[in-house]
Amino acid sequence: MNRHIVILGSGFAGLAAAKALADKDVTVSVVDSKNYHLFQPLLYQVASGDLDAEAVATPIRRILKKRNLRFILSTVSGLNLDRRIVHMEDGTDLSYDKLMIALGSSTNFHGKTGIAHHAYHLKGLPEAEALRSQILLALERASRCQDLGERQSWLSFVIAGGGTTGVEFCCALLELFRILLPRDYPELDPTEVSVHILQGESVLLPGFDPSLRAYTKIRLNALGAQIRLETHVEDFDGLTVQCNRGGSIFSRTLVWAAGVMPHPLVVTLPGEKVHGGRIPVNDHMQLSGYPDVFVLGDLAASGGMEDWPQVAPFAIQSARHAAQVVLSTWNLARAPTPFRYRDPGSMVVLGRYDAVCQIPRWNVKWHGRGAWMLWLFVHLYSIVGTRNRALTLLDWGTDYLFHSAVVELIRR
Amino acid sequence: MNRHIVILGSGFAGLAAAKALADKDVTVSVVDSKNYHLFQPLLYQVASGDLDAEAVATPIRRILKKRNLRFILSTVSGLNLDRRIVHMEDGTDLSYDKLMIALGSSTNFHGKTGIAHHAYHLKGLPEAEALRSQILLALERASRCQDLGERQSWLSFVIAGGGTTGVEFCCALLELFRILLPRDYPELDPTEVSVHILQGESVLLPGFDPSLRAYTKIRLNALGAQIRLETHVEDFDGLTVQCNRGGSIFSRTLVWAAGVMPHPLVVTLPGEKVHGGRIPVNDHMQLSGYPDVFVLGDLAASGGMEDWPQVAPFAIQSARHAAQVVLSTWNLARAPTPFRYRDPGSMVVLGRYDAVCQIPRWNVKWHGRGAWMLWLFVHLYSIVGTRNRALTLLDWGTDYLFHSAVVELIRR
Repeated sequence: MNRHIVILGSGFAGLAAAKALADKDVTVSVVDSKNYHLFQPLLYQVASGDLDAEAVATPIRRILKKRNLRFILSTVSGLNLDRRIVHMEDGTDLSYDKLMIALGSSTNFHGKTGIAHHAYHLKGLPEAEALRSQILLALERASRCQDLGERQSWLSFVIAGGGTTGVEFCCALLELFRILLPRDYPELDPTEVSVHILQGESVLLPGFDPSLRAYTKIRLNALGAQIRLETHVEDFDGLTVQCNRGGSIFSRTLVWAAGVMPHPLVVTLPGEKVHGGRIPVNDHMQLSGYPDVFVLGDLAASGGMEDWPQVAPFAIQSARHAAQVVLSTWNLARAPTPFRYRDPGSMVVLGRYDAVCQIPRWNVKWHGRGAWMLWLFVHLYSIVGTRNRALTLLDWGTDYLFHSAVVELIRR
Repeated sequence: MNRHIVILGSGFAGLAAAKALADKDVTVSVVDSKNYHLFQPLLYQVASGDLDAEAVATPIRRILKKRNLRFILSTVSGLNLDRRIVHMEDGTDLSYDKLMIALGSSTNFHGKTGIAHHAYHLKGLPEAEALRSQILLALERASRCQDLGERQSWLSFVIAGGGTTGVEFCCALLELFRILLPRDYPELDPTEVSVHILQGESVLLPGFDPSLRAYTKIRLNALGAQIRLETHVEDFDGLTVQCNRGGSIFSRTLVWAAGVMPHPLVVTLPGEKVHGGRIPVNDHMQLSGYPDVFVLGDLAASGGMEDWPQVAPFAIQSARHAAQVVLSTWNLARAPTPFRYRDPGSMVVLGRYDAVCQIPRWNVKWHGRGAWMLWLFVHLYSIVGTRNRALTLLDWGTDYLFHSAVVELIRR
């Protein structure tokens, strides 16, 4: 096969690369172990019951409609960069002319097996649905529990990590309880419910402007969150969250939002790793010594001076750049200038009609309703596929109009 | 607790009983092992990707909003009818003044362990989603498979059972392939796909008028189904469907729609069982010797001359009757006249704009577009909850307008 580009992964980076190569005189194979693209930034809303799974997951084949793009549902087991071959778990091989590694990151439990075994996390769709089921199951168990101590352990929820995911999920969870408890659980006393957010660093949302961090902390407090800063979770056995300071918390539900690590395949790649296992690439996203291999998105670290964030905008920009480099090698596009990340800004939603937002380029620091409207627009616009957008709107519409959480199914 | 009515199960019967007891001077506890009511008649559309899970499942607490109704998420492990106690799996007991047993039926594999282990079926939500995942996984596997025989075994789908569920699912599956294959699987040759429907009896839809049965057979043939009558599946190992006649079928996917049996708890009840394990009751749905115990829906068999079908309308009617009997014992309602089932008719959907429908009372036998419109109206009207109705409409709307199957997520 001539001009065969293999893309590993169908996250933001993999799909952006495929789209940039669509309708060109090349053949593209997208490989993923799941058959859907996940809109990761809204996954926490699946866990909090605001959205159903189908609203944040789009079938990859629906997206890859162009003739030169094909999809392969399979799991990569290894790479042979010298022979330009991708090995699959099912024993088959796939040869390539250009390879784009966009496998993304997974949850990093920092080697703590108790936490890895008992905690919930927000990386994949089944994990988000399992967390939602656990939250609702905890309310059901608590509503039948006569023992105060046991009941409070069911009604205590601990979020480890005060970054974007931790803060957004914390707000969504408090909002869920505010709506759901009086309506569906009259047996429960809302004052017995507690939501803790533990942050290892000294501030929440460390990447944000101090004014927005202060606003976030005030809002979280007002919503009823119990914030502990400079606090690490050391262990969890399903009943007790052990912390390095401030005492343990009796809780059945620990949500781990305290770090990611690169896809395990990355350790098999040659060369040094930086910034927690990421792969240094040149300013054309190429792996050192292998100009036909591109590393995209979460996995890529700048070999130069830039500090690249593990966010969707970077994933998309890195993928588009790599696609242009690939096309230029076959004279199908102009060679691009060296890659520079353009930061479009960051947003964190803090609940109904509330968010913080900063756009460094324009020196914008927003919070409150205006920031929330912008967030809504950006997210709806970004979600792939008309049907998903309609479904998301319907879910949110019923949610906000009828003040009801829409998804309460306990799946086991 | 005074006037405490315990309802086991939250299917059509259990919920109808609870609703009939709402706002009365009684306390009602609904017990179920899952936290949602399942709209069973449309479950096959979850398996065929026409609807998502949330469209056919409504949280029970959302339905039981009245002050005198409460919900208990738990699994019943046993009954003590003489002491009026329900034992739960978690070790707790629940005492009652009146008991309504509405636990419904489960799939009957007729003791064939190979089939029970390898076949898919359409009784619960996880099972329907597992079947959908298997169908889509089969298409993915086939699209990477070079060996013709193996590929055809992935592309061969066998439905055992030619009653309502079997016929409706068969049509939905053929429709799914008609839409999905040319659009999303250009690698696959649609002529290699085969859908078989095996029926043990000599006709499809045995309960229907011969003219509608004939129409159904013609339509199924036109859609491309391979019909085998008087054919039983004898065994299945995940690769080969062994039949009593006509030869084996190499297939990876067997869908079992060939019979149901009562909930296992029923065997612990005193007295004889009839009609495949169902419980004979008097014409007030009462268990013989236990006038405080009512048996509803699928589990109930007439002790008299009537032949009660295991369908939603009977479940609802039996539940409303029992609720009135219960209320009348406390002078909260007039004593009802003996129960008589009023058959509202039956409908089977045969695909886009096509159905058969018969209403014996009015001597109506319809087929085609008019029957389909009636079917759509009846089903939408029946689905519990505004939000589910809107979601179902959206799902169907996008499905029919854009000719697209809407749910293609492979869950594992």
